[in-house]
Amino acid sequence: MAEPVYVLGGYQTDFARNWTKENKHIMAMIREAVEGGLSETGIDPESIEVGHVGNFAAELYSMQGHLGAFLVDANPAFSGLPTARHEAACASGSIALLAASAEIEAGRYDTAMVVGVEQMKTVDPKTGGDYLGTAAWYEREAEGVDFPFPKLFGRLGDEYDKRYGLKDEHLAQISAVNYSNAKRNPLAQTRSWYMTEEHANSTDKFNSVIGGRIKVSDCSQVTDGAVALFLASRKGAEKYASQRGIDVDSLPRILGWGHRTAPIEFTTKVAESADNEYVLPHTRRAIVDAFERAGLSGVDDVDAIETHDCFTTSEYMAIDHFGLTKPGESWKAVEEGVIEIGGKTPINPSGGLIGAGHPVGATGCRQLLDAHKQVQGNAGDYQVDNAKTIATLNIGGSGTTSCCFIVGH
Amino acid sequence: MAEPVYVLGGYQTDFARNWTKENKHIMAMIREAVEGGLSETGIDPESIEVGHVGNFAAELYSMQGHLGAFLVDANPAFSGLPTARHEAACASGSIALLAASAEIEAGRYDTAMVVGVEQMKTVDPKTGGDYLGTAAWYEREAEGVDFPFPKLFGRLGDEYDKRYGLKDEHLAQISAVNYSNAKRNPLAQTRSWYMTEEHANSTDKFNSVIGGRIKVSDCSQVTDGAVALFLASRKGAEKYASQRGIDVDSLPRILGWGHRTAPIEFTTKVAESADNEYVLPHTRRAIVDAFERAGLSGVDDVDAIETHDCFTTSEYMAIDHFGLTKPGESWKAVEEGVIEIGGKTPINPSGGLIGAGHPVGATGCRQLLDAHKQVQGNAGDYQVDNAKTIATLNIGGSGTTSCCFIVGH
Repeated sequence: MAEPVYVLGGYQTDFARNWTKENKHIMAMIREAVEGGLSETGIDPESIEVGHVGNFAAELYSMQGHLGAFLVDANPAFSGLPTARHEAACASGSIALLAASAEIEAGRYDTAMVVGVEQMKTVDPKTGGDYLGTAAWYEREAEGVDFPFPKLFGRLGDEYDKRYGLKDEHLAQISAVNYSNAKRNPLAQTRSWYMTEEHANSTDKFNSVIGGRIKVSDCSQVTDGAVALFLASRKGAEKYASQRGIDVDSLPRILGWGHRTAPIEFTTKVAESADNEYVLPHTRRAIVDAFERAGLSGVDDVDAIETHDCFTTSEYMAIDHFGLTKPGESWKAVEEGVIEIGGKTPINPSGGLIGAGHPVGATGCRQLLDAHKQVQGNAGDYQVDNAKTIATLNIGGSGTTSCCFIVGH
Repeated sequence: MAEPVYVLGGYQTDFARNWTKENKHIMAMIREAVEGGLSETGIDPESIEVGHVGNFAAELYSMQGHLGAFLVDANPAFSGLPTARHEAACASGSIALLAASAEIEAGRYDTAMVVGVEQMKTVDPKTGGDYLGTAAWYEREAEGVDFPFPKLFGRLGDEYDKRYGLKDEHLAQISAVNYSNAKRNPLAQTRSWYMTEEHANSTDKFNSVIGGRIKVSDCSQVTDGAVALFLASRKGAEKYASQRGIDVDSLPRILGWGHRTAPIEFTTKVAESADNEYVLPHTRRAIVDAFERAGLSGVDDVDAIETHDCFTTSEYMAIDHFGLTKPGESWKAVEEGVIEIGGKTPINPSGGLIGAGHPVGATGCRQLLDAHKQVQGNAGDYQVDNAKTIATLNIGGSGTTSCCFIVGH
């Protein structure tokens, strides 16, 4: 790596809020994230040199493009701030973080602000499902299909079933763990919702089938949310640390990252991986790249994972792709409690996308902020004991764009 | 600067084409740009390590997001290629170039592909005008307004008129120069269209008023287009050069860049700049930043400019903001022929946005490709004699996001 990239902290909005019901524009979400982040970290807005936004589809949900420019309006100090918006469907937040960290590594700027944001409750669920279809090859995979993404991720489960066998009870257990963890997270969308493993494993009028093997309990929900994060070079971090009288090495860094893109169509993906032990080998590669860049030998060097459980099947995939089990044996980690808080490698102590919520363009930023909270011991009731190194995995499309970060000291 | 960034070359589609009439998906545009670029440069697709897309609003025009992922489908060698899409309205192409060049400067990759693309002819002009309104603050500046952007850039002319005086005949002359230059460019949208200074200066049924002081002849037109560019580190450029038996120093580089963002609302911009000699001081700052990073003393060190003439008023602004005249005196450079091919500092030898066309997400890439052609002496009939150093200016929104590149050796 060139210049190291430090994570100074940030702010997450309450993912249970419905900003449309509050009659608020997406700018209000951006503003709260920025103001909250500045207040939380005590960073002087004058010291911020560049701003990045991760957002999937505000053009559709909010009839608004050019979101980078809205950062400028978030604080009087930001007039003239260079800004941009970055997108790779549900991995947009991580893509914005990659763009921001590249500029820091290149020595362009010392302190960067990254805001991940999505306002999704502007439309009814079916229309929203159609919009999400633009993360796939819309004409071929989504047009005229009700809720295309649950169906695509149902097929990920089917592919596991075909290659290795898959029991829905393990998916139900994944759902229950995420819901349970979310109850500990005061910003989680579902913190007051009811879900048990038994309920997630049953099909009834309260847990209906959305498509294929995917039931309501297998799905992350439509969420409004914004997250601000502040990244810094060594110089920026030293300034931040000295102002607070703390050691710069007490600040977490991005130790490594991975970024890979698979063919966009799900059929092409699984045809390509037919002879591979991993169902999504490019996702595996992104994880391994991150481990290698961080100098980790593998998942044993990681204390917890914040992964992309847009559906239970994507977390099931993450378990073996991270290397917690051999390929196809994710169910073992589920059965053995490995992924629970208190387990060997907790997954989604925050509640993840299913529990904490999935405002798509914000998710990658929310994961990195939660990684920051964990390694700083600031995760409150969902703190993982002695968490020193956290991995994130953020996915756009049906396993198309995969981004992985390792955060630690 | 960290690692230098070389421009290896690229490919532009014919901007006169209507891809919707050809019944083609935006993927066909991306594919032609990539295949054309690989063929034009002879680059081995296996050597490309990352892909970036600049696009404004495919979600609206083409009901398709996640465009980065489409790069993977453009060549069998690209499976697993890290990809992303970047957006800042009509500056999206430059924003993608900034993201790609940051990764090279950071040492992440040695060879990057950048594709700027927009398919705009999928909808009728009024709907398209509404979509373009999402580059402004849609609810406040565009909702319910027919063709909001000509009106916003008409107000830029009005602001010049108020501060310094502005004659429409000078705008007409700018239009005529761009149309005239475009006739030399075999890929220009308007190469076979008719436009003279007299016609541009008159208002009749063939040159009607679109909004405020903006007539048809003042406007860039709705355009479909895609451009591929290949950027490289010193190592990547050396490999490219040695394979061709040429000197690496014969390859152009990005000598400097500037990137600034003003408040998104036009009213806020001009209120903020009321006491400034420049109407758009952040645009001026982006230009000066690029000069400084390139080690240039100013516009006298530049042989030609490819600027963002979405409307004649934005080119009028560029003339004094680049420093070709004192602030408010752009008309002098117009009258003296400074901006014509053969003049002291030709502007838009390609025809610019008005003449060559403005597929919004592709424009910043088209400008950099034309800069590459000029400094390599490959611009054919629109070649500027002895062009060694070229500046580009790409603008998103009503003067909101400004990006400037300096290309030379």
